[in-house]
Amino acid sequence: MKNRVITISREFGSGGRTIGKMVAQRLGIPCYDAEIIEKIAQESGYSGDYIKNEGEGAGDKWLSNLFSNRSMGPTNQDKIWLIQSRIITRLAEKSPCVIVGRCADYVLRDKADLLNVFIHATPEKRAERIVREYGERDAAPLERIREKDRRRAAYHRFYTDLKWGHAQNYHISLDSGKLGIGKCVDLIASLY
Amino acid sequence: MKNRVITISREFGSGGRTIGKMVAQRLGIPCYDAEIIEKIAQESGYSGDYIKNEGEGAGDKWLSNLFSNRSMGPTNQDKIWLIQSRIITRLAEKSPCVIVGRCADYVLRDKADLLNVFIHATPEKRAERIVREYGERDAAPLERIREKDRRRAAYHRFYTDLKWGHAQNYHISLDSGKLGIGKCVDLIASLY
Repeated sequence: MKNRVITISREFGSGGRTIGKMVAQRLGIPCYDAEIIEKIAQESGYSGDYIKNEGEGAGDKWLSNLFSNRSMGPTNQDKIWLIQSRIITRLAEKSPCVIVGRCADYVLRDKADLLNVFIHATPEKRAERIVREYGERDAAPLERIREKDRRRAAYHRFYTDLKWGHAQNYHISLDSGKLGIGKCVDLIASLY
Repeated sequence: MKNRVITISREFGSGGRTIGKMVAQRLGIPCYDAEIIEKIAQESGYSGDYIKNEGEGAGDKWLSNLFSNRSMGPTNQDKIWLIQSRIITRLAEKSPCVIVGRCADYVLRDKADLLNVFIHATPEKRAERIVREYGERDAAPLERIREKDRRRAAYHRFYTDLKWGHAQNYHISLDSGKLGIGKCVDLIASLY
């Protein structure tokens, strides 16, 4: 029987990662996020930092990587995609869990009993949150949010061919800025 | 003080109208849907049927109406839009309520304390539902769903400039096919 897995896709700064952890804690199941990156690193020999930078296309070369000619074979980003897909599949086969990000909804589409969640908030609410949580002061937070959104959308679209942020791609989408983190946790946990 | 209003946007066949009625009943507040059409009819002198056909662009001329040159003045559809916007505003000022469809989320964006809901489901689930609920047998139900979706999206986009079905435009979006009608009602009512 397939395991029940909650996948959480989220806009940068929306608190999706926090929500994922709190849901997992409430349900007594593991939550995977940074852990996945570490496992990718162990399996691939890439350094954790390298994968963190390339994983969702955060490095300088992210756009050229994403749209480069693949006739010379897969890019490093492609290799990471395959490795992380294998790891996500293995984790989902092992036990029920929460997986934040990494296109887990797409990777596991036929491999788990999924509840696919999308967490979003207005750019203004997200800017408030990243300044409060991470103390970000380097660049204008709204700029940073727009840039992160663009990257996540492009990455997601390239590897899954699904439009990121379309309500139809998720079982439940929540505005964490309007509803609050705690209420989002309640709603998701109540659906499990 | 602004009234709390739940707006429900929905894909054809997703059960959004039923969910709206059940939420309103649970909360003891009115639900407006067909009632709005009737009020539009009374105020405008148009027949109820005419408005039903033109309101979301279901008539034969819907596309030509939507994209026609407005240098000759507003189309009938434009007039209906204005009348129905006034009625929705008046209803929301009168008391807390649920309003299904009619771009109420957009019309009331500065005029009420809104909880904006989007109800969707896969085309297959919706086809099942319309056959079961309405006994539709005339055309292929999947065809009918695609056509209705196209019309609602075009109408919504034209009058609101918001993309229909984008999770970011709603506070909560729910897949009624996956979660079930009753669970959707529970979740929405719990947020009020």
